[in-house]
Amino acid sequence: DIKKVPSLRGKVILTLFNEASTRTRVSFEQAAKLLSADVINITPTSSSAEKGESLLNTVLTLQAMHADVLIMRDPSSGSPYFAARHLTNMKVVNAGDGQHAHPTQALLDAFTIKRHLGSLQGAKIVIVGDILHSRVARSNIWALSSLGARVVLVGPPTLLPKELLPIQSQNRDGSNNPSDLDISIETDLDYAIKDADVVIALRLQKERQQKGMIPSLREYTRRWLITDSRLSKAKAHVLLMHPGPLNEGIEISSSLAHGLSSRVEEQVTNGVAVRMALLYLLLTGVPI
Amino acid sequence: DIKKVPSLRGKVILTLFNEASTRTRVSFEQAAKLLSADVINITPTSSSAEKGESLLNTVLTLQAMHADVLIMRDPSSGSPYFAARHLTNMKVVNAGDGQHAHPTQALLDAFTIKRHLGSLQGAKIVIVGDILHSRVARSNIWALSSLGARVVLVGPPTLLPKELLPIQSQNRDGSNNPSDLDISIETDLDYAIKDADVVIALRLQKERQQKGMIPSLREYTRRWLITDSRLSKAKAHVLLMHPGPLNEGIEISSSLAHGLSSRVEEQVTNGVAVRMALLYLLLTGVPI
Amino acid sequence: DIKKVPSLRGKVILTLFNEASTRTRVSFEQAAKLLSADVINITPTSSSAEKGESLLNTVLTLQAMHADVLIMRDPSSGSPYFAARHLTNMKVVNAGDGQHAHPTQALLDAFTIKRHLGSLQGAKIVIVGDILHSRVARSNIWALSSLGARVVLVGPPTLLPKELLPIQSQNRDGSNNPSDLDISIETDLDYAIKDADVVIALRLQKERQQKGMIPSLREYTRRWLITDSRLSKAKAHVLLMHPGPLNEGIEISSSLAHGLSSRVEEQVTNGVAVRMALLYLLLTGVPI
Repeated sequence: DIKKVPSLRGKVILTLFNEASTRTRVSFEQAAKLLSADVINITPTSSSAEKGESLLNTVLTLQAMHADVLIMRDPSSGSPYFAARHLTNMKVVNAGDGQHAHPTQALLDAFTIKRHLGSLQGAKIVIVGDILHSRVARSNIWALSSLGARVVLVGPPTLLPKELLPIQSQNRDGSNNPSDLDISIETDLDYAIKDADVVIALRLQKERQQKGMIPSLREYTRRWLITDSRLSKAKAHVLLMHPGPLNEGIEISSSLAHGLSSRVEEQVTNGVAVRMALLYLLLTGVPI
Repeated sequence: DIKKVPSLRGKVILTLFNEASTRTRVSFEQAAKLLSADVINITPTSSSAEKGESLLNTVLTLQAMHADVLIMRDPSSGSPYFAARHLTNMKVVNAGDGQHAHPTQALLDAFTIKRHLGSLQGAKIVIVGDILHSRVARSNIWALSSLGARVVLVGPPTLLPKELLPIQSQNRDGSNNPSDLDISIETDLDYAIKDADVVIALRLQKERQQKGMIPSLREYTRRWLITDSRLSKAKAHVLLMHPGPLNEGIEISSSLAHGLSSRVEEQVTNGVAVRMALLYLLLTGVPI
Repeated sequence: DIKKVPSLRGKVILTLFNEASTRTRVSFEQAAKLLSADVINITPTSSSAEKGESLLNTVLTLQAMHADVLIMRDPSSGSPYFAARHLTNMKVVNAGDGQHAHPTQALLDAFTIKRHLGSLQGAKIVIVGDILHSRVARSNIWALSSLGARVVLVGPPTLLPKELLPIQSQNRDGSNNPSDLDISIETDLDYAIKDADVVIALRLQKERQQKGMIPSLREYTRRWLITDSRLSKAKAHVLLMHPGPLNEGIEISSSLAHGLSSRVEEQVTNGVAVRMALLYLLLTGVPI
């Protein structure tokens, strides 16, 4: 009946979130506490960064307190890797860095897909929306294609990353992708979604409109909103996923968000399990 | 010597406070920890509400993490009830919603009164001040009158809720209160306080003056401040209560706030016990 | 392998930090959790002080919840002492009050020095920088000189506290310091640092320049930055310390901050141990 296990008793896990977050921080804290670790939260409003301390000195200080793991979210791409390079006694977990990566989100997404499809090999996974600014997309492109999936990126041309355009050309030419990963780019959602096994909708930051990257929310939803009729072109068992928080009616229609295809809540549930596994492996080195 | 008991070990209790609070949040956290539950705090500055996520999706996400209880404070009246209706696996506790209700405050107030008077049956309880905006008053009116007390509301006419005026008329007419609850309204504190067993002063939000609902703080305190001379008209054993935080010299004089009649600190102490009982019952279903 | 001990199981420790802090709050929380106490954090954004509650009523409320220790940081000098005078059942720890005192920092500094020098008796300890506004300096002057050290304060005349000038005159005159403590003031860092056993650089708040207390950061660092060449005049084993957070290149050069003389991280490590000892003694009364 008690879901808590004593595996990480006496370990101290710090969370340093320099960006707003509910689900990721709470998910990590829940994971840590179910393993009986102690958790200490450091929020931007209470932190020394306000006083001008460098990130290096902040993390060296935290390491000097003999904490075991630092879970970091930061608006600057690369900062958890920078921290990890300078720390010898404290592990670092990237909980999302700038527009670069969100590795535990990709792990939980891969896990969720694998539980349903058995394997990712050859599965068609369509990632829809603001690929350009999405750390979730970057981690998922890497993770899912490495596990053998065919990853199709689709969104407005202004929100597709330029570094992926060569991949698109190669695919169009029929030449091999030098990385042997199967990644392609589309700009027509209705075409891209055909026979998809998985559709991952990304969050649209509403600031994108102010910056002129989308013409209007109305125009955006007309072309990119996942609706019943659009999703009907995918496979019957299609998994509809979203990293959250969800703008209902902009990325996914309300009926689909709470419908039978939605795996959104399952992703959240799996997130706690995946993070428990990660913390356990990181701190014990013992395969589960 | 150890005051902690293992009753709720392995349970995860979330607090989601979208309004500033010291005493209520700390009281719940203390209650949960004394029962050995794990507590995860979610504050407005760290939450996804900032990112435009709907309350429904926020609470579904938290439920999907397999937390056991969500303790919610929210500026929107009704939001904890809305959340509870949509959650099947996570319990919701209302820690104060808008101007609607603050049920644990009423429970701890009833408990505090019962410990002193033995029973609330027939006790005269005077609630003084800004009834209109007070969720504490609304919960107490219901709880205390249901337990048999005679509840007298007194305050400036601009701060009395219009929906209670029919009750006043009925009482004046001598006709029966259709609900069989004994609730009356007065606008003269010196008259109302006579022979009171309990006086509950409410917090005055200083913004009320800016909004023209009271003429001035000076005028307000002249008519509504609980002073020694006013309280001397109540019964000798009168219990002077306040939900806090207290504006000394506005609602209660400083000498009374720290005087022998004051039950303010006792209310706080009982609050932890009442919340422990609530969480225990909610999570075990076992009568204490 | 488990570094956690059950000594303070069932004790509740509150932190009330009304100023930004990473290291001190996390250090106390880490110390408390390693002793198995429960910790409840109260931050200014979530507190009743926002609602105008007096400090006295806030701490009486927290005491009424039967917490065991209140760890307080406050911008108002003296407030933890005020709180302690009014509390009978809850202990108060000063985690930094205004410009007055930061006792646990002085304890951890003294402990760090003692581990290296064996004794503070006769050790020359130079404290450099903004003495005037530094609670760290005030606590260290008292602690270190009481333990027998020769404390030399050095910094711009505008940032030296006037109340210490008589001490300077007495020292210059060769007359005895009435307190029998060996404290002197210098305004030439290169002279003061000669043969130092310990150099403690203080944090410069950048606002000092705006307030006209230093001519410019450039001028400040030219005279007061601890550099390799300056530090070479101290003893070979000199301990270079800083309470953090560090402005690298303003108080200490980057090479020194991460160099062999630096004891900055060791101070942080010792901080957790010293605070564990403090909480243990405070709550058990048992000598370690």
